[in-house]
Amino acid sequence: MKNTIITISRQYGSAGRAIGHQVAEKLGLECYDSQIITKIAEESGFDADYVRKNSETTAESGFFASLTGMDLYTFSNRDTIWILQSKIINELAEKGPCVIVGRCADYILRDRFDLLRVFVYADNEDRIRRITEEYKEAEAGKHPEKVLAANDKRRATYYDIYTDQKFGDYHYYDMCLSSSALGIDTCAHMITEAYEKKTAE
Amino acid sequence: MKNTIITISRQYGSAGRAIGHQVAEKLGLECYDSQIITKIAEESGFDADYVRKNSETTAESGFFASLTGMDLYTFSNRDTIWILQSKIINELAEKGPCVIVGRCADYILRDRFDLLRVFVYADNEDRIRRITEEYKEAEAGKHPEKVLAANDKRRATYYDIYTDQKFGDYHYYDMCLSSSALGIDTCAHMITEAYEKKTAE
Repeated sequence: MKNTIITISRQYGSAGRAIGHQVAEKLGLECYDSQIITKIAEESGFDADYVRKNSETTAESGFFASLTGMDLYTFSNRDTIWILQSKIINELAEKGPCVIVGRCADYILRDRFDLLRVFVYADNEDRIRRITEEYKEAEAGKHPEKVLAANDKRRATYYDIYTDQKFGDYHYYDMCLSSSALGIDTCAHMITEAYEKKTAE
Repeated sequence: MKNTIITISRQYGSAGRAIGHQVAEKLGLECYDSQIITKIAEESGFDADYVRKNSETTAESGFFASLTGMDLYTFSNRDTIWILQSKIINELAEKGPCVIVGRCADYILRDRFDLLRVFVYADNEDRIRRITEEYKEAEAGKHPEKVLAANDKRRATYYDIYTDQKFGDYHYYDMCLSSSALGIDTCAHMITEAYEKKTAE
């Protein structure tokens, strides 16, 4: 029997990571998130921060990112990271049922595992508050609105280049939840229940 | 205190209507669906079937529908139906908390009520099975795939003309659920729980 994997795609600043960890704790499963970055860094020799920036978003957005993705003769570093990421995510999923946050796991695992594919989003107001107060990741001197917009664009571009899916399009998910409207706890509860019903069949 | 209204937008053939009725039954609320058609027909004098075809989808799709929506000097019949639909949906929401299936209720009520905005979708395979076996609405001599595609297009066009929302875009919903992945009962259960948590606050 195939392992059932919960994949959580999420908008930057939507608390998808916190929700993933809460779901894993409720279900007694592993939750893979930044460990994937660490593993890619170990196996590739790239710096972890470099991997983070190139494992789910492009360093550039739009046209220029497509150009750098179009190198026909050699792999770019980002291609190398994508291949390692695919390998590592498959290995983790083979170990047993788990929660994987981000990293295109929904796309990478689509043919080999049973998936509960979740997309988490939030209002921009909440996302801005979260990235400035909680994540403390807003770059110095930059407006959080701009950080958010740039990140959204880079993540969408990454999906365009490496998958045939459209980031945030409901066709590719089993459930899409707004953490702003529902709250983090309710989102985690709903995902947990959906997983329990799915695996009880 | 504002009434909390559950609005269920849904893809044609996704069982959104069945889910809406199940939610209403669980919560002891009214569920409004085809009654809205009947009321519009009564107040306008139009035939109920004509109202059904022009209250949520356009009779045409795309460019021609935009043209007929662009009459600057007189109301089209569809405009008249839209105005009556808005009035009737507001009146129903004022009566008390309820479930409203389709009819752009999420857009119509957006400023005056607390909403739990749900979008229900399904795999095409399930939708085709449902419209041919359960709804028995497939038109004679037409492939169900074509009926589905035409309906999707007309519904999207209607949203384009009458609202500033994009049908099925997660930004406009609090939760989007696949009835194929989760099942009708789980969808109804999840919406019921989300409503209970929202109104308990």
